[in-house]
Amino acid sequence: MSKVEERLKELGFELPPAPKPAAVYVPAVRTGNLVFISGQGVTYDGKPVMVGHVGQELTLEEGYKAAQICALNALAVLKQEIGDLDKVKRIVKVLGWVNSAPGFNKQPYVINGFSELMEKVFGERGRHARSAVTAHELPFDTPVEVEMVVEVEE
Amino acid sequence: MSKVEERLKELGFELPPAPKPAAVYVPAVRTGNLVFISGQGVTYDGKPVMVGHVGQELTLEEGYKAAQICALNALAVLKQEIGDLDKVKRIVKVLGWVNSAPGFNKQPYVINGFSELMEKVFGERGRHARSAVTAHELPFDTPVEVEMVVEVEE
Amino acid sequence: MSKVEERLKELGFELPPAPKPAAVYVPAVRTGNLVFISGQGVTYDGKPVMVGHVGQELTLEEGYKAAQICALNALAVLKQEIGDLDKVKRIVKVLGWVNSAPGFNKQPYVINGFSELMEKVFGERGRHARSAVTAHELPFDTPVEVEMVVEVEE
Repeated sequence: MSKVEERLKELGFELPPAPKPAAVYVPAVRTGNLVFISGQGVTYDGKPVMVGHVGQELTLEEGYKAAQICALNALAVLKQEIGDLDKVKRIVKVLGWVNSAPGFNKQPYVINGFSELMEKVFGERGRHARSAVTAHELPFDTPVEVEMVVEVEE
Repeated sequence: MSKVEERLKELGFELPPAPKPAAVYVPAVRTGNLVFISGQGVTYDGKPVMVGHVGQELTLEEGYKAAQICALNALAVLKQEIGDLDKVKRIVKVLGWVNSAPGFNKQPYVINGFSELMEKVFGERGRHARSAVTAHELPFDTPVEVEMVVEVEE
Repeated sequence: MSKVEERLKELGFELPPAPKPAAVYVPAVRTGNLVFISGQGVTYDGKPVMVGHVGQELTLEEGYKAAQICALNALAVLKQEIGDLDKVKRIVKVLGWVNSAPGFNKQPYVINGFSELMEKVFGERGRHARSAVTAHELPFDTPVEVEMVVEVEE
Protein backbone atom coordinates (compact mmCIF):
# COMPACT_ATOMS: atom_id res chain seq x y z
CA MET A 1 0.00 0.00 0.00
CA SER A 2 1.37 3.42 -0.95
CA LYS A 3 2.16 5.98 1.77
CA VAL A 4 -0.59 8.15 0.35
CA GLU A 5 -3.15 5.38 0.76
CA GLU A 6 -1.91 4.65 4.28
CA ARG A 7 -2.37 8.32 5.07
CA LEU A 8 -5.90 8.23 3.63
CA LYS A 9 -6.67 5.24 5.85
CA GLU A 10 -5.36 7.04 8.94
CA LEU A 11 -7.70 9.90 8.08
CA GLY A 12 -10.63 7.48 7.94
CA PHE A 13 -11.04 7.37 4.18
CA GLU A 14 -10.53 4.71 1.56
CA LEU A 15 -10.29 4.84 -2.19
CA PRO A 16 -13.57 4.10 -3.96
CA PRO A 17 -13.66 2.15 -7.24
CA ALA A 18 -12.37 4.47 -9.98
CA PRO A 19 -15.47 6.05 -11.56
CA LYS A 20 -16.15 5.19 -15.16
CA PRO A 21 -17.03 8.17 -17.35
CA ALA A 22 -20.75 8.80 -17.72
CA ALA A 23 -20.25 9.44 -21.44
CA VAL A 24 -17.71 9.21 -24.27
CA TYR A 25 -14.48 10.37 -22.70
CA VAL A 26 -11.74 8.89 -20.53
CA PRO A 27 -11.14 9.47 -16.82
CA ALA A 28 -7.61 10.83 -17.23
CA VAL A 29 -5.02 11.71 -19.87
CA ARG A 30 -1.30 12.05 -19.27
CA THR A 31 0.81 14.37 -21.41
CA GLY A 32 4.45 14.67 -20.39
CA ASN A 33 4.51 14.93 -16.60
CA LEU A 34 1.00 16.32 -16.36
CA VAL A 35 -2.13 14.27 -15.77
CA PHE A 36 -5.48 15.88 -16.54
CA ILE A 37 -8.31 14.33 -14.49
CA SER A 38 -11.86 14.56 -15.84
CA GLY A 39 -14.54 16.31 -13.81
CA GLN A 40 -15.53 14.09 -10.87
CA GLY A 41 -18.99 14.14 -9.36
CA VAL A 42 -20.46 13.01 -6.07
CA THR A 43 -20.85 9.32 -6.83
CA TYR A 44 -19.76 5.97 -5.47
CA ASP A 45 -19.22 3.23 -8.02
CA GLY A 46 -21.30 5.14 -10.55
CA LYS A 47 -24.25 5.85 -8.28
CA PRO A 48 -25.10 9.30 -6.91
CA VAL A 49 -24.31 9.70 -3.19
CA MET A 50 -25.93 13.12 -2.87
CA VAL A 51 -27.87 15.30 -5.29
CA GLY A 52 -29.16 18.86 -5.26
CA HIS A 53 -28.15 22.47 -4.86
CA VAL A 54 -26.00 23.70 -2.00
CA GLY A 55 -27.90 26.40 -0.13
CA GLN A 56 -31.19 24.70 -0.98
CA GLU A 57 -31.53 20.88 -0.71
CA LEU A 58 -28.04 20.69 0.84
CA THR A 59 -26.24 22.65 3.55
CA LEU A 60 -22.74 24.06 3.23
CA GLU A 61 -21.51 21.23 5.49
CA GLU A 62 -23.08 18.64 3.18
CA GLY A 63 -21.49 20.43 0.23
CA TYR A 64 -18.10 20.13 1.96
CA LYS A 65 -18.62 16.37 2.34
CA ALA A 66 -19.71 16.19 -1.30
CA ALA A 67 -16.43 17.84 -2.34
CA GLN A 68 -14.52 15.25 -0.27
CA ILE A 69 -16.22 12.51 -2.28
CA CYS A 70 -15.13 14.23 -5.51
CA ALA A 71 -11.57 14.20 -4.12
CA LEU A 72 -11.68 10.48 -3.36
CA ASN A 73 -12.98 9.79 -6.87
CA ALA A 74 -10.24 11.97 -8.36
CA LEU A 75 -7.60 10.06 -6.39
CA ALA A 76 -9.05 6.73 -7.50
CA VAL A 77 -8.86 7.83 -11.12
CA LEU A 78 -5.34 9.15 -10.63
CA LYS A 79 -4.19 5.86 -9.09
CA GLN A 80 -5.73 3.97 -12.00
CA GLU A 81 -3.78 6.20 -14.41
CA ILE A 82 -0.34 6.29 -12.75
CA GLY A 83 -0.40 3.05 -10.73
CA ASP A 84 0.97 4.47 -7.48
CA LEU A 85 -0.15 7.65 -5.73
CA ASP A 86 3.33 8.10 -4.23
CA LYS A 87 4.42 9.21 -7.72
CA VAL A 88 2.52 12.49 -7.31
CA LYS A 89 4.88 15.45 -7.33
CA ARG A 90 2.27 18.16 -7.04
CA ILE A 91 -1.43 18.73 -7.22
CA VAL A 92 -1.11 21.68 -9.61
CA LYS A 93 -4.54 23.09 -10.35
CA VAL A 94 -8.08 22.42 -9.21
CA LEU A 95 -11.29 23.73 -10.74
CA GLY A 96 -14.49 23.13 -8.81
CA TRP A 97 -18.12 23.87 -9.54
CA VAL A 98 -20.73 24.05 -6.82
CA ASN A 99 -24.34 23.45 -7.82
CA SER A 100 -25.62 26.57 -6.10
CA ALA A 101 -28.97 27.90 -5.00
CA PRO A 102 -29.68 31.49 -6.03
CA GLY A 103 -27.96 33.79 -3.55
CA PHE A 104 -25.51 31.15 -2.28
CA ASN A 105 -21.99 32.53 -2.62
CA LYS A 106 -19.75 30.57 -0.23
CA GLN A 107 -18.38 28.17 -2.86
CA PRO A 108 -14.79 28.39 -1.54
CA TYR A 109 -15.83 26.78 1.76
CA VAL A 110 -17.50 23.95 -0.16
CA ILE A 111 -14.52 23.24 -2.40
CA ASN A 112 -12.33 23.27 0.71
CA GLY A 113 -13.66 19.74 1.23
CA PHE A 114 -11.60 18.78 -1.81
CA SER A 115 -8.61 20.99 -1.11
CA GLU A 116 -8.17 20.13 2.55
CA LEU A 117 -8.23 16.43 1.80
CA MET A 118 -5.49 16.89 -0.81
CA GLU A 119 -3.37 18.84 1.66
CA LYS A 120 -3.87 16.32 4.46
CA VAL A 121 -2.99 13.43 2.20
CA PHE A 122 -0.08 14.89 0.22
CA GLY A 123 1.20 17.61 2.57
CA GLU A 124 3.05 20.39 0.73
CA ARG A 125 2.70 18.48 -2.55
CA GLY A 126 -1.07 18.74 -2.15
CA ARG A 127 -1.19 22.55 -2.09
CA HIS A 128 -2.66 23.70 -5.38
CA ALA A 129 -3.83 26.68 -7.37
CA ARG A 130 -7.61 26.74 -7.57
CA SER A 131 -10.76 28.33 -8.86
CA ALA A 132 -14.07 27.68 -7.14
CA VAL A 133 -17.12 28.71 -9.14
CA THR A 134 -20.81 27.96 -9.46
CA ALA A 135 -23.33 26.29 -11.67
CA HIS A 136 -27.09 26.73 -11.61
CA GLU A 137 -27.36 23.06 -12.61
CA LEU A 138 -24.84 20.23 -12.88
CA PRO A 139 -24.91 16.87 -14.69
CA PHE A 140 -27.41 14.44 -13.16
CA ASP A 141 -27.94 16.92 -10.33
CA THR A 142 -24.56 16.27 -8.69
CA PRO A 143 -23.95 18.94 -6.01
CA VAL A 144 -20.25 19.37 -6.83
CA GLU A 145 -17.97 18.65 -9.77
CA VAL A 146 -14.18 18.98 -9.61
CA GLU A 147 -11.41 18.49 -12.17
CA MET A 148 -7.67 18.73 -11.59
CA VAL A 149 -4.20 18.82 -13.15
CA VAL A 150 -1.44 16.85 -11.42
CA GLU A 151 2.31 16.74 -11.92
CA VAL A 152 3.77 13.24 -11.60
CA GLU A 153 7.27 11.78 -11.57
CA GLU A 154 8.84 10.87 -14.90
CA MET B 1 -5.44 16.68 -47.70
CA SER B 2 -4.54 15.30 -44.28
CA LYS B 3 -5.83 11.89 -43.22
CA VAL B 4 -7.81 13.60 -40.52
CA GLU B 5 -9.58 15.81 -43.04
CA GLU B 6 -10.24 12.81 -45.30
CA ARG B 7 -11.79 11.05 -42.35
CA LEU B 8 -13.93 14.12 -41.61
CA LYS B 9 -15.13 14.08 -45.22
CA GLU B 10 -16.03 10.38 -45.02
CA LEU B 11 -18.10 11.21 -41.96
CA GLY B 12 -19.95 13.89 -43.94
CA PHE B 13 -18.31 16.93 -42.36
CA GLU B 14 -15.99 19.61 -43.63
CA LEU B 15 -13.86 22.16 -41.87
CA PRO B 16 -15.49 25.59 -41.60
CA PRO B 17 -13.46 28.80 -41.90
CA ALA B 18 -11.44 29.18 -38.68
CA PRO B 19 -13.50 31.44 -36.41
CA LYS B 20 -12.01 34.80 -35.57
CA PRO B 21 -12.22 35.74 -31.89
CA ALA B 22 -15.24 37.83 -30.97
CA ALA B 23 -13.04 40.01 -28.79
CA VAL B 24 -9.41 40.78 -27.89
CA TYR B 25 -7.79 37.37 -27.69
CA VAL B 26 -6.34 34.83 -30.10
CA PRO B 27 -7.89 31.56 -31.27
CA ALA B 28 -5.03 29.36 -30.03
CA VAL B 29 -1.70 29.50 -28.22
CA ARG B 30 1.00 26.85 -28.36
CA THR B 31 3.38 26.34 -25.45
CA GLY B 32 5.80 23.44 -25.83
CA ASN B 33 3.82 20.53 -27.26
CA LEU B 34 0.50 21.78 -25.94
CA VAL B 35 -1.97 23.89 -27.88
CA PHE B 36 -4.68 25.70 -25.91
CA ILE B 37 -7.77 26.38 -28.06
CA SER B 38 -10.05 29.26 -27.09
CA GLY B 39 -13.68 28.56 -26.27
CA GLN B 40 -15.59 27.84 -29.49
CA GLY B 41 -19.24 28.65 -29.94
CA VAL B 42 -21.94 27.49 -32.33
CA THR B 43 -21.11 29.71 -35.28
CA TYR B 44 -20.22 29.40 -38.95
CA ASP B 45 -17.90 32.04 -40.32
CA GLY B 46 -18.68 34.31 -37.38
CA LYS B 47 -22.46 34.02 -37.61
CA PRO B 48 -24.58 32.13 -35.05
CA VAL B 49 -25.94 28.81 -36.35
CA MET B 50 -28.17 28.14 -33.34
CA VAL B 51 -28.95 30.15 -30.23
CA GLY B 52 -30.77 29.45 -26.98
CA HIS B 53 -30.89 27.19 -23.97
CA VAL B 54 -30.86 23.42 -24.23
CA GLY B 55 -33.96 22.06 -22.54
CA GLN B 56 -35.90 25.18 -23.52
CA GLU B 57 -35.51 26.64 -27.04
CA LEU B 58 -33.39 23.66 -28.08
CA THR B 59 -33.73 19.91 -27.59
CA LEU B 60 -30.95 17.63 -26.35
CA GLU B 61 -30.54 16.40 -29.96
CA GLU B 62 -30.09 19.97 -31.18
CA GLY B 63 -27.61 20.55 -28.37
CA TYR B 64 -25.64 17.52 -29.57
CA LYS B 65 -25.49 18.99 -33.08
CA ALA B 66 -24.46 22.34 -31.61
CA ALA B 67 -21.55 20.63 -29.83
CA GLN B 68 -20.51 19.05 -33.16
CA ILE B 69 -20.31 22.54 -34.64
CA CYS B 70 -18.07 23.62 -31.76
CA ALA B 71 -15.84 20.63 -32.56
CA LEU B 72 -15.55 21.61 -36.23
CA ASN B 73 -14.66 25.17 -35.25
CA ALA B 74 -12.07 23.89 -32.78
CA LEU B 75 -10.52 21.71 -35.50
CA ALA B 76 -10.44 24.64 -37.93
CA VAL B 77 -8.62 26.76 -35.35
CA LEU B 78 -6.25 23.91 -34.55
CA LYS B 79 -5.41 23.43 -38.24
CA GLN B 80 -4.79 27.15 -38.59
CA GLU B 81 -2.38 26.95 -35.65
CA ILE B 82 -0.41 23.79 -36.47
CA GLY B 83 -0.84 23.61 -40.25
CA ASP B 84 -1.68 19.90 -40.46
CA LEU B 85 -4.19 18.02 -38.32
CA ASP B 86 -2.18 14.79 -38.74
CA LYS B 87 0.32 16.29 -36.27
CA VAL B 88 -2.16 15.79 -33.43
CA LYS B 89 -0.81 13.32 -30.87
CA ARG B 90 -3.67 13.51 -28.43
CA ILE B 91 -6.77 15.49 -27.65
CA VAL B 92 -5.86 15.91 -23.98
CA LYS B 93 -8.61 17.81 -22.21
CA VAL B 94 -12.00 19.21 -23.13
CA LEU B 95 -14.14 21.60 -21.11
CA GLY B 96 -17.66 22.21 -22.34
CA TRP B 97 -20.43 24.50 -21.17
CA VAL B 98 -24.06 23.89 -22.06
CA ASN B 99 -26.40 26.87 -21.99
CA SER B 100 -29.00 25.10 -19.88
CA ALA B 101 -32.63 25.65 -19.00
CA PRO B 102 -33.41 25.40 -15.28
CA GLY B 103 -33.75 21.72 -14.40
CA PHE B 104 -31.84 20.47 -17.45
CA ASN B 105 -29.03 18.20 -16.24
CA LYS B 106 -28.02 15.97 -19.17
CA GLN B 107 -25.03 18.08 -20.23
CA PRO B 108 -22.78 15.02 -20.79
CA TYR B 109 -25.03 13.82 -23.64
CA VAL B 110 -24.83 17.25 -25.25
CA ILE B 111 -21.04 17.51 -25.06
CA ASN B 112 -20.86 13.99 -26.50
CA GLY B 113 -21.50 15.72 -29.83
CA PHE B 114 -18.02 17.19 -29.48
CA SER B 115 -16.35 14.14 -27.95
CA GLU B 116 -17.73 11.54 -30.34
CA LEU B 117 -16.62 13.59 -33.32
CA MET B 118 -13.08 13.78 -31.92
CA GLU B 119 -13.02 10.03 -31.35
CA LYS B 120 -14.38 9.24 -34.81
CA VAL B 121 -11.86 11.53 -36.46
CA PHE B 122 -8.72 10.79 -34.45
CA GLY B 123 -9.46 7.30 -33.08
CA GLU B 124 -7.54 6.51 -29.87
CA ARG B 125 -5.73 9.86 -30.14
CA GLY B 126 -9.12 11.57 -29.89
CA ARG B 127 -10.03 10.10 -26.49
CA HIS B 128 -9.76 12.89 -23.94
CA ALA B 129 -10.32 13.84 -20.32
CA ARG B 130 -13.37 16.07 -19.99
CA SER B 131 -15.63 18.15 -17.83
CA ALA B 132 -19.14 18.99 -18.99
CA VAL B 133 -20.83 21.74 -17.05
CA THR B 134 -23.57 24.32 -17.39
CA ALA B 135 -24.16 28.00 -17.80
CA HIS B 136 -27.39 29.91 -17.23
CA GLU B 137 -26.33 32.22 -20.07
CA LEU B 138 -23.51 32.11 -22.63
CA PRO B 139 -21.94 34.78 -24.85
CA PHE B 140 -24.30 35.99 -27.57
CA ASP B 141 -26.73 33.25 -26.55
CA THR B 142 -24.63 30.41 -28.02
CA PRO B 143 -26.09 27.09 -26.84
CA VAL B 144 -22.69 25.44 -26.29
CA GLU B 145 -19.11 26.61 -25.77
CA VAL B 146 -16.13 24.25 -25.73
CA GLU B 147 -12.40 24.78 -25.18
CA MET B 148 -9.66 22.16 -25.41
CA VAL B 149 -5.99 21.34 -24.83
CA VAL B 150 -4.21 19.30 -27.51
CA GLU B 151 -0.81 17.62 -27.56
CA VAL B 152 0.95 17.94 -30.92
CA GLU B 153 4.14 16.54 -32.42
CA GLU B 154 7.37 18.44 -31.84
CA MET C 1 11.44 48.18 -11.51
CA SER C 2 10.68 45.69 -14.30
CA LYS C 3 9.76 46.97 -17.76
CA VAL C 4 6.36 45.43 -17.32
CA GLU C 5 5.74 47.40 -14.14
CA GLU C 6 6.99 50.59 -15.79
CA ARG C 7 4.53 49.98 -18.60
CA LEU C 8 1.75 49.44 -16.05
CA LYS C 9 2.63 52.75 -14.44
CA GLU C 10 2.57 54.56 -17.81
CA LEU C 11 -0.92 53.15 -18.31
CA GLY C 12 -1.98 54.59 -14.95
CA PHE C 13 -2.08 51.33 -13.00
CA GLU C 14 -0.04 49.94 -10.17
CA LEU C 15 0.27 46.45 -8.74
CA PRO C 16 -1.94 45.84 -5.71
CA PRO C 17 -0.76 43.67 -2.80
CA ALA C 18 -0.84 40.06 -3.96
CA PRO C 19 -4.21 38.66 -2.82
CA LYS C 20 -4.09 35.89 -0.26
CA PRO C 21 -6.37 32.96 -1.02
CA ALA C 22 -9.79 33.16 0.61
CA ALA C 23 -9.55 29.47 1.51
CA VAL C 24 -7.17 26.49 1.62
CA TYR C 25 -5.22 26.76 -1.60
CA VAL C 26 -2.24 28.72 -2.92
CA PRO C 27 -2.25 31.71 -5.28
CA ALA C 28 -0.07 30.08 -7.93
CA VAL C 29 1.72 26.83 -8.77
CA ARG C 30 4.56 26.45 -11.22
CA THR C 31 5.15 23.19 -13.08
CA GLY C 32 7.95 23.24 -15.64
CA ASN C 33 7.64 26.53 -17.53
CA LEU C 34 3.96 26.94 -16.81
CA VAL C 35 2.48 28.91 -13.94
CA PHE C 36 -1.16 28.29 -13.03
CA ILE C 37 -2.74 31.31 -11.34
CA SER C 38 -5.74 30.75 -9.06
CA GLY C 39 -9.03 32.45 -9.85
CA GLN C 40 -8.79 36.15 -8.98
CA GLY C 41 -11.75 38.21 -7.88
CA VAL C 42 -12.50 41.91 -7.73
CA THR C 43 -10.73 42.74 -4.48
CA TYR C 44 -8.02 45.05 -3.19
CA ASP C 45 -5.91 43.71 -0.34
CA GLY C 46 -8.57 41.13 0.45
CA LYS C 47 -11.52 43.51 0.49
CA PRO C 48 -14.23 43.56 -2.23
CA VAL C 49 -13.99 46.56 -4.57
CA MET C 50 -17.27 45.86 -6.36
CA VAL C 51 -19.95 43.24 -5.90
CA GLY C 52 -23.01 42.14 -7.85
CA HIS C 53 -24.20 40.88 -11.19
CA VAL C 54 -23.26 42.53 -14.47
CA GLY C 55 -26.43 43.54 -16.28
CA GLN C 56 -28.18 44.13 -12.94
CA GLU C 57 -26.33 45.92 -10.09
CA LEU C 58 -23.41 46.67 -12.43
CA THR C 59 -23.17 47.96 -15.99
CA LEU C 60 -21.03 46.41 -18.72
CA GLU C 61 -18.56 49.28 -18.27
CA GLU C 62 -18.29 48.55 -14.55
CA GLY C 63 -17.81 44.88 -15.39
CA TYR C 64 -14.94 45.84 -17.70
CA LYS C 65 -13.30 47.75 -14.85
CA ALA C 66 -13.90 44.80 -12.54
CA ALA C 67 -12.06 42.54 -15.00
CA GLN C 68 -9.13 45.00 -15.01
CA ILE C 69 -8.91 44.62 -11.23
CA CYS C 70 -8.79 40.83 -11.64
CA ALA C 71 -5.91 41.35 -14.09
CA LEU C 72 -3.96 43.50 -11.63
CA ASN C 73 -4.48 40.89 -8.91
CA ALA C 74 -3.34 38.14 -11.27
CA LEU C 75 -0.19 40.11 -12.11
CA ALA C 76 0.52 40.71 -8.42
CA VAL C 77 0.26 36.98 -7.75
CA LEU C 78 2.41 36.19 -10.77
CA LYS C 79 5.11 38.60 -9.63
CA GLN C 80 5.04 37.05 -6.17
CA GLU C 81 5.53 33.61 -7.75
CA ILE C 82 8.25 34.36 -10.35
CA GLY C 83 9.89 37.45 -8.82
CA ASP C 84 10.08 39.52 -12.00
CA LEU C 85 7.29 40.09 -14.52
CA ASP C 86 9.84 40.52 -17.31
CA LYS C 87 10.31 36.74 -17.18
CA VAL C 88 6.88 36.23 -18.76
CA LYS C 89 7.18 34.57 -22.17
CA ARG C 90 3.50 34.32 -22.91
CA ILE C 91 0.13 34.71 -21.32
CA VAL C 92 -1.13 31.35 -22.61
CA LYS C 93 -4.72 30.85 -21.53
CA VAL C 94 -7.33 32.86 -19.70
CA LEU C 95 -10.65 31.64 -18.33
CA GLY C 96 -13.06 34.27 -17.07
CA TRP C 97 -16.44 34.06 -15.39
CA VAL C 98 -18.84 36.97 -15.36
CA ASN C 99 -21.44 37.06 -12.58
CA SER C 100 -24.33 37.66 -14.96
CA ALA C 101 -27.91 38.82 -14.67
CA PRO C 102 -30.44 36.63 -16.49
CA GLY C 103 -30.42 37.61 -20.16
CA PHE C 104 -26.99 39.27 -20.05
CA ASN C 105 -24.82 37.69 -22.74
CA LYS C 106 -22.01 40.15 -23.53
CA GLN C 107 -19.40 38.44 -21.32
CA PRO C 108 -16.62 38.80 -23.94
CA TYR C 109 -16.76 42.60 -23.66
CA VAL C 110 -16.46 42.33 -19.87
CA ILE C 111 -13.48 39.97 -19.92
CA ASN C 112 -11.85 42.31 -22.46
CA GLY C 113 -11.00 44.42 -19.40
CA PHE C 114 -8.61 41.64 -18.43
CA SER C 115 -7.38 40.78 -21.92
CA GLU C 116 -6.73 44.32 -23.13
CA LEU C 117 -4.68 45.09 -20.05
CA MET C 118 -2.53 42.02 -20.67
CA GLU C 119 -2.00 43.02 -24.28
CA LYS C 120 -1.15 46.62 -23.40
CA VAL C 121 1.31 45.54 -20.76
CA PHE C 122 3.01 42.59 -22.48
CA GLY C 123 2.42 43.37 -26.16
CA GLU C 124 2.50 40.26 -28.36
CA ARG C 125 3.44 38.14 -25.34
CA GLY C 126 0.16 39.17 -23.75
CA ARG C 127 -2.07 37.76 -26.50
CA HIS C 128 -3.75 34.66 -25.12
CA ALA C 129 -6.29 31.96 -25.83
CA ARG C 130 -9.44 32.54 -23.82
CA SER C 131 -12.87 31.41 -22.78
CA ALA C 132 -15.35 33.89 -21.34
CA VAL C 133 -18.33 32.32 -19.64
CA THR C 134 -20.96 33.10 -17.02
CA ALA C 135 -21.99 32.28 -13.52
CA HIS C 136 -25.37 32.94 -11.90
CA GLU C 137 -23.48 33.53 -8.63
CA LEU C 138 -19.80 33.87 -7.75
CA PRO C 139 -17.89 33.59 -4.46
CA PHE C 140 -18.68 36.43 -2.05
CA ASP C 141 -20.66 38.11 -4.84
CA THR C 142 -17.58 39.12 -6.85
CA PRO C 143 -18.70 40.36 -10.28
CA VAL C 144 -15.84 38.70 -12.20
CA GLU C 145 -13.38 35.86 -11.54
CA VAL C 146 -10.46 35.09 -13.83
CA GLU C 147 -7.75 32.41 -13.79
CA MET C 148 -4.82 32.07 -16.17
CA VAL C 149 -1.92 29.92 -17.35
CA VAL C 150 1.38 31.68 -18.11
CA GLU C 151 4.58 30.47 -19.76
CA VAL C 152 7.72 31.83 -18.09
CA GLU C 153 11.42 31.70 -18.85
CA GLU C 154 13.41 28.73 -17.55
